[in-house]
Amino acid sequence: MKTFHNPHHALHQGREEMFRGRMVHCHEVPARLDYVLAELQRRSQGGLFLPEVGDTDLDAAIARVHDPRYTQFLAGAWDEWVAMDPANAQRDALPSVWPLGNKHAFRTDVLPQNFAARLGLFSFDSGSPLMAGTWTAARAGAACAVAAAREVHGGARAAFALTRPPGHHAGPDFFGGYCFLNNGAIAAQALRDLGHAKVAVLDIDYHHGNGTQTIFYERADVMTVSIHGDPATEYPFFLGHANERGAGAGEGFNLNIPLPRGTGFAAWCAALDTAIEAVEDFGADALVVPMGMDTFKGDPISGFTLESSDYDTVGRLLAAASLPTVFTFEGGYAVDEVGVNAVNLLEAYCRSI
Amino acid sequence: MKTFHNPHHALHQGREEMFRGRMVHCHEVPARLDYVLAELQRRSQGGLFLPEVGDTDLDAAIARVHDPRYTQFLAGAWDEWVAMDPANAQRDALPSVWPLGNKHAFRTDVLPQNFAARLGLFSFDSGSPLMAGTWTAARAGAACAVAAAREVHGGARAAFALTRPPGHHAGPDFFGGYCFLNNGAIAAQALRDLGHAKVAVLDIDYHHGNGTQTIFYERADVMTVSIHGDPATEYPFFLGHANERGAGAGEGFNLNIPLPRGTGFAAWCAALDTAIEAVEDFGADALVVPMGMDTFKGDPISGFTLESSDYDTVGRLLAAASLPTVFTFEGGYAVDEVGVNAVNLLEAYCRSI
Repeated sequence: MKTFHNPHHALHQGREEMFRGRMVHCHEVPARLDYVLAELQRRSQGGLFLPEVGDTDLDAAIARVHDPRYTQFLAGAWDEWVAMDPANAQRDALPSVWPLGNKHAFRTDVLPQNFAARLGLFSFDSGSPLMAGTWTAARAGAACAVAAAREVHGGARAAFALTRPPGHHAGPDFFGGYCFLNNGAIAAQALRDLGHAKVAVLDIDYHHGNGTQTIFYERADVMTVSIHGDPATEYPFFLGHANERGAGAGEGFNLNIPLPRGTGFAAWCAALDTAIEAVEDFGADALVVPMGMDTFKGDPISGFTLESSDYDTVGRLLAAASLPTVFTFEGGYAVDEVGVNAVNLLEAYCRSI
Repeated sequence: MKTFHNPHHALHQGREEMFRGRMVHCHEVPARLDYVLAELQRRSQGGLFLPEVGDTDLDAAIARVHDPRYTQFLAGAWDEWVAMDPANAQRDALPSVWPLGNKHAFRTDVLPQNFAARLGLFSFDSGSPLMAGTWTAARAGAACAVAAAREVHGGARAAFALTRPPGHHAGPDFFGGYCFLNNGAIAAQALRDLGHAKVAVLDIDYHHGNGTQTIFYERADVMTVSIHGDPATEYPFFLGHANERGAGAGEGFNLNIPLPRGTGFAAWCAALDTAIEAVEDFGADALVVPMGMDTFKGDPISGFTLESSDYDTVGRLLAAASLPTVFTFEGGYAVDEVGVNAVNLLEAYCRSI
């Protein structure tokens, strides 16, 4: 399996995030990707490639998923942040005020001029610092997703988009959960645009893929499935309940499988079986797997209890779905183990196809 | 004019707030109220009273304005915050994740179990720290509002609810902008319940009264008027535009007069004339004035340029409206001057009736 990795990922390197009411060091650090890359090299798992996607194609692929007002905002955000106050050059941008969800506090068609307002408008948490290199890093990550989709469309059974910042929490017009551009959604849409009729996204990150769900919620051509910690108690909250089944043409094409904090591998695996069955019933001809490794028992901000060896089984079960598959790298904050766990999964997948 | 002041206000004393992406010392400090109280005493402006409102009456008055799920949340918030992590006893609670405003990311009827999720659900910024004494202080503040409404209903021309935390940003089910319970709205509703047929709220704080607007947006019996910094550039953003005129039965009963940052007294005064005219056209038989002093030129987080002596004129113009009036103390962060400015307004008001 080829891996397309992001040479610019380390340009995105947050200092502090707001986490449960206080500022802490960022969990989503460049070393996460470096460990996966090193482990891929150590175990000679396929080739490592830089994505070769032209600027025009890349921007078009991003625009298929994200609102242009949002990407324009992201592209200019750092300059605006520093323009607000030159001292801001020394600190990352974090939102601190946001629009209310109630019916008379709607988003308007006219964006606020104030940068702080737009920062809050386009986000859902204050844990996702935005800095000088965020746009460059995120955009280069989207190129990995497009390259992986092309690779799979070209006949490869699978490809891996190894990038950070991660993507599955990013929606059509919002960032949060350390995510800015939704790499998995961009890959899924690219597969659709390359001719795959039905694409499924099977999100195995500990946290609900609220961005991906929102992007495809009204569509019947991309099914979204997510196995995750119950949003009643687990981040990102609010979305990810079992009764969210899609809307309009998309009704029936979103499947959430929330599991209680503390869930072990047996129950998790049963959920994966259900998820794969749903993907098969849907009749998908391509699959995207937002691959979060934060289901690991040692993850500092998550609550399932998978062991490193369990990822072999996950890889094997995903391979049994027999679909052309793009993997995208999502969460996983037990940094020392993230490389071993990710490559366990990918290696087992490759052994099983 | 009698002043009803809050003996428990200093129980609410935040350490840090998130302000434009970084943690800073709180702007909304106990000294603000103490300066006003001292200036009232120094200038012998009416009597100073503690509110005498029974618990049952007080809770009923609050429940007329705020969702019981929200007040239950506020009442138990500190204990839940500390239960999440004993170390939280040493820090104030601040939200760090919130529901998205988009149509598929609705508030559910079932509240999230997770406290951090409810904290974000019931708020719109991360600049309003909640601490052990917040509920007690805010609730005692609401008692000042009820006492002032009763005083006015009893025949007094005016009364002053001198309390903090302030109130006008608090909505039916949200806090933010340093506000938790909407004292002005509680006073307005109390006046309605005491028999006043039409009550107007005329908000002269620098910041739009988004909470008050939201509370009365669909009602024809309480008109809300606000003069404030243009939400396109000024906090709290999102609401406060001139085209927000009320909805349903309330259509035409909300008037926003946004003014550009930098507005001086002449233009501000013209807006006040317009506002008072609207209150008169409405046919109000009682008035509530959320009295923010952050229109002052020296305010550190606002942008109008009123001078201390201008507040004499403001008091005189408000008196000319000839309505029974409850004043509530809202913003104003030029702490050294807030007492003089507030009492300038109230003293001129009293001289002019």
